[in-house]
Amino acid sequence: MTCVSCLLLLLLQLLLTAAAAAGAGAGGGGGGGGSAGPYEPNWSSLDSRPLPAWYDDAKVGVFLVWGVYSVPSYGSEWFWKYLQADKNPKYIDFMERNFRPNFTYQEFASHFTTELFDPASWAEMVSASGARYVVLTSKHHEGYTNWPSAYSPNWNSMDVGPKRDLVGDLAKAFRSKAPHVHFGLYHSMFEWFNPLYLQDRHNNYTTNLFVETKTVPELYELINQYQPEVVWSDGASVDPDWYWNSTVFLAWLFNSSPVKETVVVNDRWGEGAMCHHGSFYTCQDRYNPGSLQNHKWENAMTLDKASWGYRREATLTDYLTIHDLLTTLAQTISCGGNLLVNVGPTHDGRIPTIMEERLRQLGSWLDINGDSVYSSRPWTHQNDSLTPGVWYTSRGDRVYAMVLKWPKDDLVKLGSVVTTKHTSITMLGYGHGNLTFTPLEDTGTHVTFPAMSKVASQWVWVLDMFGVIPAGHTTH
Amino acid sequence: MTCVSCLLLLLLQLLLTAAAAAGAGAGGGGGGGGSAGPYEPNWSSLDSRPLPAWYDDAKVGVFLVWGVYSVPSYGSEWFWKYLQADKNPKYIDFMERNFRPNFTYQEFASHFTTELFDPASWAEMVSASGARYVVLTSKHHEGYTNWPSAYSPNWNSMDVGPKRDLVGDLAKAFRSKAPHVHFGLYHSMFEWFNPLYLQDRHNNYTTNLFVETKTVPELYELINQYQPEVVWSDGASVDPDWYWNSTVFLAWLFNSSPVKETVVVNDRWGEGAMCHHGSFYTCQDRYNPGSLQNHKWENAMTLDKASWGYRREATLTDYLTIHDLLTTLAQTISCGGNLLVNVGPTHDGRIPTIMEERLRQLGSWLDINGDSVYSSRPWTHQNDSLTPGVWYTSRGDRVYAMVLKWPKDDLVKLGSVVTTKHTSITMLGYGHGNLTFTPLEDTGTHVTFPAMSKVASQWVWVLDMFGVIPAGHTTH
Amino acid sequence: MTCVSCLLLLLLQLLLTAAAAAGAGAGGGGGGGGSAGPYEPNWSSLDSRPLPAWYDDAKVGVFLVWGVYSVPSYGSEWFWKYLQADKNPKYIDFMERNFRPNFTYQEFASHFTTELFDPASWAEMVSASGARYVVLTSKHHEGYTNWPSAYSPNWNSMDVGPKRDLVGDLAKAFRSKAPHVHFGLYHSMFEWFNPLYLQDRHNNYTTNLFVETKTVPELYELINQYQPEVVWSDGASVDPDWYWNSTVFLAWLFNSSPVKETVVVNDRWGEGAMCHHGSFYTCQDRYNPGSLQNHKWENAMTLDKASWGYRREATLTDYLTIHDLLTTLAQTISCGGNLLVNVGPTHDGRIPTIMEERLRQLGSWLDINGDSVYSSRPWTHQNDSLTPGVWYTSRGDRVYAMVLKWPKDDLVKLGSVVTTKHTSITMLGYGHGNLTFTPLEDTGTHVTFPAMSKVASQWVWVLDMFGVIPAGHTTH
Amino acid sequence: MTCVSCLLLLLLQLLLTAAAAAGAGAGGGGGGGGSAGPYEPNWSSLDSRPLPAWYDDAKVGVFLVWGVYSVPSYGSEWFWKYLQADKNPKYIDFMERNFRPNFTYQEFASHFTTELFDPASWAEMVSASGARYVVLTSKHHEGYTNWPSAYSPNWNSMDVGPKRDLVGDLAKAFRSKAPHVHFGLYHSMFEWFNPLYLQDRHNNYTTNLFVETKTVPELYELINQYQPEVVWSDGASVDPDWYWNSTVFLAWLFNSSPVKETVVVNDRWGEGAMCHHGSFYTCQDRYNPGSLQNHKWENAMTLDKASWGYRREATLTDYLTIHDLLTTLAQTISCGGNLLVNVGPTHDGRIPTIMEERLRQLGSWLDINGDSVYSSRPWTHQNDSLTPGVWYTSRGDRVYAMVLKWPKDDLVKLGSVVTTKHTSITMLGYGHGNLTFTPLEDTGTHVTFPAMSKVASQWVWVLDMFGVIPAGHTTH
Repeated sequence: MTCVSCLLLLLLQLLLTAAAAAGAGAGGGGGGGGSAGPYEPNWSSLDSRPLPAWYDDAKVGVFLVWGVYSVPSYGSEWFWKYLQADKNPKYIDFMERNFRPNFTYQEFASHFTTELFDPASWAEMVSASGARYVVLTSKHHEGYTNWPSAYSPNWNSMDVGPKRDLVGDLAKAFRSKAPHVHFGLYHSMFEWFNPLYLQDRHNNYTTNLFVETKTVPELYELINQYQPEVVWSDGASVDPDWYWNSTVFLAWLFNSSPVKETVVVNDRWGEGAMCHHGSFYTCQDRYNPGSLQNHKWENAMTLDKASWGYRREATLTDYLTIHDLLTTLAQTISCGGNLLVNVGPTHDGRIPTIMEERLRQLGSWLDINGDSVYSSRPWTHQNDSLTPGVWYTSRGDRVYAMVLKWPKDDLVKLGSVVTTKHTSITMLGYGHGNLTFTPLEDTGTHVTFPAMSKVASQWVWVLDMFGVIPAGHTTH
Repeated sequence: MTCVSCLLLLLLQLLLTAAAAAGAGAGGGGGGGGSAGPYEPNWSSLDSRPLPAWYDDAKVGVFLVWGVYSVPSYGSEWFWKYLQADKNPKYIDFMERNFRPNFTYQEFASHFTTELFDPASWAEMVSASGARYVVLTSKHHEGYTNWPSAYSPNWNSMDVGPKRDLVGDLAKAFRSKAPHVHFGLYHSMFEWFNPLYLQDRHNNYTTNLFVETKTVPELYELINQYQPEVVWSDGASVDPDWYWNSTVFLAWLFNSSPVKETVVVNDRWGEGAMCHHGSFYTCQDRYNPGSLQNHKWENAMTLDKASWGYRREATLTDYLTIHDLLTTLAQTISCGGNLLVNVGPTHDGRIPTIMEERLRQLGSWLDINGDSVYSSRPWTHQNDSLTPGVWYTSRGDRVYAMVLKWPKDDLVKLGSVVTTKHTSITMLGYGHGNLTFTPLEDTGTHVTFPAMSKVASQWVWVLDMFGVIPAGHTTH
Repeated sequence: MTCVSCLLLLLLQLLLTAAAAAGAGAGGGGGGGGSAGPYEPNWSSLDSRPLPAWYDDAKVGVFLVWGVYSVPSYGSEWFWKYLQADKNPKYIDFMERNFRPNFTYQEFASHFTTELFDPASWAEMVSASGARYVVLTSKHHEGYTNWPSAYSPNWNSMDVGPKRDLVGDLAKAFRSKAPHVHFGLYHSMFEWFNPLYLQDRHNNYTTNLFVETKTVPELYELINQYQPEVVWSDGASVDPDWYWNSTVFLAWLFNSSPVKETVVVNDRWGEGAMCHHGSFYTCQDRYNPGSLQNHKWENAMTLDKASWGYRREATLTDYLTIHDLLTTLAQTISCGGNLLVNVGPTHDGRIPTIMEERLRQLGSWLDINGDSVYSSRPWTHQNDSLTPGVWYTSRGDRVYAMVLKWPKDDLVKLGSVVTTKHTSITMLGYGHGNLTFTPLEDTGTHVTFPAMSKVASQWVWVLDMFGVIPAGHTTH
Repeated sequence: MTCVSCLLLLLLQLLLTAAAAAGAGAGGGGGGGGSAGPYEPNWSSLDSRPLPAWYDDAKVGVFLVWGVYSVPSYGSEWFWKYLQADKNPKYIDFMERNFRPNFTYQEFASHFTTELFDPASWAEMVSASGARYVVLTSKHHEGYTNWPSAYSPNWNSMDVGPKRDLVGDLAKAFRSKAPHVHFGLYHSMFEWFNPLYLQDRHNNYTTNLFVETKTVPELYELINQYQPEVVWSDGASVDPDWYWNSTVFLAWLFNSSPVKETVVVNDRWGEGAMCHHGSFYTCQDRYNPGSLQNHKWENAMTLDKASWGYRREATLTDYLTIHDLLTTLAQTISCGGNLLVNVGPTHDGRIPTIMEERLRQLGSWLDINGDSVYSSRPWTHQNDSLTPGVWYTSRGDRVYAMVLKWPKDDLVKLGSVVTTKHTSITMLGYGHGNLTFTPLEDTGTHVTFPAMSKVASQWVWVLDMFGVIPAGHTTH
C-alpha cells in the first residue's frame, strides 16, 4: 500500500485543502468551505467546486437512521421491501405471528410515537462521541418524511405518529446544544412503492412525474427549511442522473442555497454518479477500501453489523466492540476517509444504551487521541509494512501511528518509519515523556511501549512521532 | 305552482327525452343516453349534450358516504374539518376523552377495517330499495381514496385500513348482482388539508400543482378503471372552474371516455358552475326546491337528518321515518328531480340496520307504486291546489296523485284535477277496480278512497287517474 | 286449549294473587309483594313465599345483555365458549382473519369502551317501550363483572375497559329517570373457564372453592350494593343446587336482604330447580309454551333471533318485526307469562337504533292497548278455538281478544266467546263506540271490525269485551 | 472489621457447611442440601434446618424482574403503585401524555407480548454471566402471574398478553440448556390493589380471605409445578407472619415438597421475619452491610441503579459499570453474602443489550477469577486494614485479595496479610509465576504487581496467596 503515486496524490490533496481554506476565508462564514462558482448544472462544473474544509477536518460523524421501520424494528430498515416486494419468509412470518392479517406496513406509522425523544440529549450524546457532524434520515426508501413535507401529506411525522417535526426539532437542538457539530440530512431519492416512481420507471423514464412532484420539491423544502450542511443522497443509483435532475439541484445548492458556502454532498445522484461526482464518495461495497483514495470519501458503517435501523433482536455479538470501531476509524482516516458511525434510534425516541456506550467510549478515546484524528491528513504510508494493525496519519511535521493491539513484550516494530537525528516519539495519553526507540538496520524503527499501567488510553494506542520520514523515500 | 311556462317546459323536456332516446338508439349500448359530440372544453358546448335517458327514468338512487370519518363515526363526515380547522369544542372534547394526545385523524385510517363488508349484500340491499343507481364516495374532502390511487400513496384503502379496493369491489358486485342499478362515483375535488391545495389557494391560483398532480389524474384514473355512469363532483365551489380545469376533463369524459354514452355528471365543477352547468343540478341549499325546475336536478338527502357519514350517536328521532322519506320522494319527482337517498355505512363495512329497514320499506312501497315513479314525468301541476300533501306525476295519458295522508272520512278533494267523460280512477295496490269520484262544481274532483283494509300500500297512497285534465286549462 | 282444569288453575292463580296483594299490604312498601317468612333454606319453605304482586302486573320487561362479548360482537354472546372450548370454525376463522395470533378473548375487554353510554337515555328508551322492569347482565358466563366486584379483580368494568360501575350507573339512572321501572340483575352462577369452577367439577363437587370464593360473595355484594328487584340467575343447571348453596342465599334474600319485600327470582338455582322452584319459571326450551302454566313464568326472548348479545353481522331479517314481537307478547301473557324482551347494547354503549325502534313501537302499541296487558290475567281460554291468531286476556269482568291479523272482510269469528244480553264490544284505540257483533248459532260470536282508517292501533288489534262468557261453560 | 468473634463465626460456618455436605450425601440428589426434618411449623424448628450447600457455593445469581410494568417500562416496576395510590405527578403526567383517559394499568397487560422471548438464549446469557442460580419474578405486587395460575384467572400470562407459561418455559430452558444453574422464583405475598387483601387489612387481619384463596394456593401451585430451588418471598413485611400462614407453608416446603432437599428461602415471610428467619437474609436497606454477617445473606442489587424492572428512559449513567458491579461482588462475598444481580427484561421478551454486556463482562471476569468466588468462604478479615478497595475471601489454605484498583507504581500495601516462610503469591490470570512481595516491618505485606500488559484480567485483580496468616493473630 505504499506507492509513488500516493505521494503525488497526497500533495494534490494538500493543495486542494489549501485552496479550500482560502476559499473559506473569502467566503466568510464559520470555517465554511469555498464556492468558486457560479456552477453550471453539469458534472464537470459541479466537480470543480472545492470541498469545504470543515468536512475533511471533522473526520467523524454520527449517522441516525430512524423512521417507520423503527416500529417493527425487526431485521432491517429494509423491512418493507423484504416483506412486500421480496416476500422474504422471515418477514412474512414475523407479520403473521405478530399482527392481524391485512395489517399494512403503513399502519406501523401510528406507533412511531417517539414519546421519549429528547433532542437535546441526542445532541449531547453525539457531541460526547467526539463526532463533528451528524446526519439524520429525513426520508428513507419508505417515503415517510421525518418533517411535515407539503409533498408527503398523511405520510409524514406531523400527520401520523410523532406529531412533531423531527428534523426541525433535532436541527434546533444541535444548533443550540452542540453548535460545533455540523447538522446534515440523509434523503432517499427513490421510494420503493411510490406508484408515480414505479410508473416513471415502467415508462422507461419518458415521464418524470415522481421527480417533479415529489423528490425535487422535497429537496428544496429540506434545504430551505433546515439548512443542512451535509446532503446525503441515497437510492438513486439504478436510475439515470438526468431522470433525477440532479445537476440542476446541485447547481442551485452550490450557487444560491442558504448553505452554498459550507454544504457537502455525497455521490449518489443517479446511475454513474456514485464514485465519480460529489463532495465525497461513498462507493458501494467499497465503504472501507483499505488504501488511499484519490478523492475525499466517507465510510458509512453501522454499530449493528446487520442493520442500520434499530432491530430489537440484535444481541451483543451483533454490535461492534469499541475495539472494532476504533479499528475501522484507524483504517478509514488513514486512507483519507471520514467515518460515519451509524446508530439506530428506537420507535419511542431513544438511542439504545449499548450504542450510547459505544459513542461515549469513542468520545473518551478521542479525548485522549484526537490529535491523530481531527484535521489530520493521510501520510505517505497508510498502514505499516511490517506489523499488521498499525495505521498512520499525519499533521504538519508529526506522524501518528495508531496501534490496534498492545505489542508483545511491549515492543512494536515499524517498517514504514525511519527515524532521524531529530526524531522524538511519545504516546498520546502517556504523560511521562519520550519513549525509547531503536532504528533498525535496514529500515524501520523499534519502539518500546511504556508500562501499560501508566497509559490513559484504552483499546488502541497512538504513537506521536516527530522528525520521522517514510521508509522507502530518500530525504534531503 | 301552476304556470303557463311550465307546460312549455314540459313539452321541451319530452322533446329532449325523445331526442335522447333516439341518440341512445344510435349510440347502441345498453339503454345509453346520447352524445351528439364531439364537445369542446367550454360550457356552452358541454351544455349542449343531451341528458342520457336512463338517469331521468331512474328517479331514485342510493348514496353511500363512507371513509375514514366512518371510524370516529361521530358528529359528521366533516369531523376532521371541525376538529382541526374550526377547533370545534365538541370534537376536541371527543378526542380528548377517547384518545391519547397527539392521536391524529389520519391514524383513524388503520381502524377503517371493513371486515364485515360484503359488496354483494350491499348490492342486494340497494336493489331491494328500488333504487336504479348508486353513488359511492370514492374520495371525500379528507383526501383518502377508497381505491388504490397512484396519486394518493399511503392514504388509500389498499395501503391503510381495509387493504382492498373498495370502489372496485363494489363496482364488480353491482355489475354482477344488480346490473339494472347504474354504478356512480362521488369525488371531492378539493381536500381540506392538502398542502398543495392550500398552497395553490395561497398563491391565488397562479399555481395549480394540486390540480395537475392530484385531482385531474385521479379523475382519469377513476373513470378508466371503474367506468362510473354518474360522476358526482363535490367541493369545487369556492375555487374558479378554470383552476380545476373542469371543462377539459368533461370534454374528454363526453367525447372519449369509456362511459361517454351513458355518463351523467352533476354541476359542482367550480365556482359558478353549480346550478348552471352539468347533466343535473344540485344547487346548494336548494336540494328540494318545491317547484318545477327548468333543468334536470337531483335532491341528495340523507336518512340521518344531521349527517351523511354514519355517526354512532344518532338515535331514532335523528332518522327520517319511511313517511318522511316518501314525502320527500313525492315532492322531488313531482318537481322534476331525482332522489338520492344517503346511507352511511360503518367502519366495519355494514349498512346500519335502521337504514337497511328504510331502504327495504322504500322498496316495498315502490314495488306497489313504482308506476308513478319510474320513467314518470312532472305533470302540469306539481302539488294540489286545494289539498296539501298531494303531489302529481304523469306518464303518457295517466296522471298520478301521491297522497301523503289518508284523507279524513276517506274523501280526498283534488283542486288541480278535472275529470272528463273518459275519466277512470283507481289506486295503486288496490286490486278491486275503480274508485268513486265526483266532479266539483267549479273545478276539481272528489275521490273516495277504498276501505283501507283492502289496500296493499302503506304510508302514502297513489291515485292512478286516466282521462283527466289539469285544472285551469281549457281542453279539446 | 280449553280444559276444565284450566278453570281451576285460574281460580288458584286469583287466590294466590289476592294473597300476594294482602301480603303487599302487610309488608308496606311501594306495591311490594309479600314475605310471610322467615323462610328456611329448603325449597319447600322458599316455595311458600307468595309472588310479589308487582311482577305479575308488570307483564313486560326489557333484558340488556352486555359484556365483553359486545366487543367482538360477532355470532353470539357465547363467542368465547364457541371459540375456545368448542373450536367452532366460524369463530376461529373470525379471530384468524381479524386479530393477531395469541390475541385472547380477555384482551377484548380493554376495547369495551362504552364511551357513548348514557344511562339516562337507556332509562328513557326502556320506559318508552312500556316495559315495567329491566334486567341487566351483571356478569355473564365469561365471568367479567359489570361492577367493580371485590371478587373479580382485573376482570371487571372498573379495572379494564369502561372504567366505570355500569351496574351502579344504570341502577341510579333508572331510579332517578324511570322510577316506575323495576331494576333487576342477571347473574351467571358458573363461568366457562374459571379454573376453580372447573376444578370443583373435576372433583365431583367434593370441593366448592369456586362457590365460596366467587359466586356467593358476588351475589351478596350485588344485592347489598344495588338492591335489584329481579335476581335472574343463570348457568347453574348442570350442577347440583347444593353445590351452589342456593337455598341459603335465597333464604337470606327473602328474610333479611334489603329487597326482601319486593324481590323476585327465577328458577335457575341448580340442577333440578329449573321449572320447579323460584318466583317465576323459565323452563329451558319452553320459554313460550303456548298453553296456560300452573306457575308464574317468563318468556325471555330476543329481538335478534339468533343472539342475545349484539352481533354486528345481523341484518334486518334477523330481527323480529314489531308484528312478530306483538305476536309473542300476546301468546305469552295469554298463557300467564311475562315477556322479557332482550336487546343487546354495543361495546361503545348504545342501544342499536333498530332495537330502539322496536322498543318504541312496542311502547306506542301499549299506549293504546295497555289495558289488555298490564295487570291483566289469563282468561279461561288462551287462544281462540276457531280463528288462529286470536289470544285472550282478562281483567275483572272484561275480556280482551288480541287479534294478530286484520280479518278478511273485516269480520272475525270467535269460537271461544259467547255473548250475553249484557255484552258490549269495542276496540282499543277506536274512539267511535261499540262494534257490531252476532252470536253464532251453536257457539261463538262474529264481530265486525270498524273501518281501519278510524283505528289508532297498528299491527295487532284488541277487542275489549264486556259481559261475555267462555264457550263451553254453562253460566248462571 | 476484624474481630475475634469473626473467627468463631467462620468456624461455625465451616462446621455448618460440613454438616450440610454430609446431609447432601445422605439425601442423595445432585448436590442437594440437607434436611434434618421433619420440621414443625414454628420458627425455631424451621430455623434449625441447615442451609443446602449449593447456595453458599454458588455465590452469584441473576434476578429477572419481569411483568406488566415492563410494558409502560417507565420509572419503576412500582409504576402502578406510584400512579394509582400515590398519585405521583410523574406517572400521572406520563399517562396523560401517552394514553387515552381511562386507560387502566391492567390494559397494559395485553401489550405484554413477549414475541421475542427465547428462553434458551436467556439461559445461555445467565450461564455466560457465571451465575449459578437464577430467580424469576413469578408474580410481583401487581398480582399478575407469569404462569397460568388457577388463582389468578384473566390476570396471568396465559390469559392476557404472552399467551404462554413464562415461568414454565423458562424453567424448562434452564434445566435443559443450563442444568448447573439452579432455578428459583420470586413471589410477592401481598398485592397492592387486591380487594380481598385490602379487606383483610381493613379487618385488622380478623379475616384472611386473601391468604386462603390466593397467596397460599399460589405458592403450592408454584412449588408443585415448577420445583424452584429458591423461593424468594416478598412484600410480606407489613403484615404479621401468622396472617400469611408462612410457617405452615415452610414446614411443608421443607418436609414434603418436591424440593425439600435443596430449596432455599429468603426471610420475607411476615413482619418480624425479615433478618431473623429464613435460609438467607435480605435485610431491607442493608442489602450490602459491608461487614461479616452471622447468618447467610444475599445482596440483591440491580444493574439499573434506579429500577428493577426495565425502564426505557434509563441512559448509560443509570447503569452500573462492570467495575461498579465487581466492586459490589467483592464487598458482598467477602462479608458472607451472595450477589443477586438484577436485570429487567423488556415487554417483548429481550434482555437489554447493555445488561447482556454486563452479564458477559461479569462472566469473563469470573472465568479468570472464579477461584476467589465460587465455594469461597469469608476470611478473617473482610477488607484490608491499610489499603482501601481490597477485599478478601478464602478457600482452604488459600487467601484471595480482590484489588479494585491497579495500585500506583504497581505496588499494593496489604495491612491485613502477614507472610510466612511458606508464603507464595501470584495473581489470577497471570500465567508467569509468582509475584515479588516484601514483609513489612510491623505487620503486613508489600506485593508488586506484574506488568499490566501480561495480565488477562481487567477491572479488578485478584491476588492468590498461599501460606499467609491474618494480621493481628498469632499463629503456630
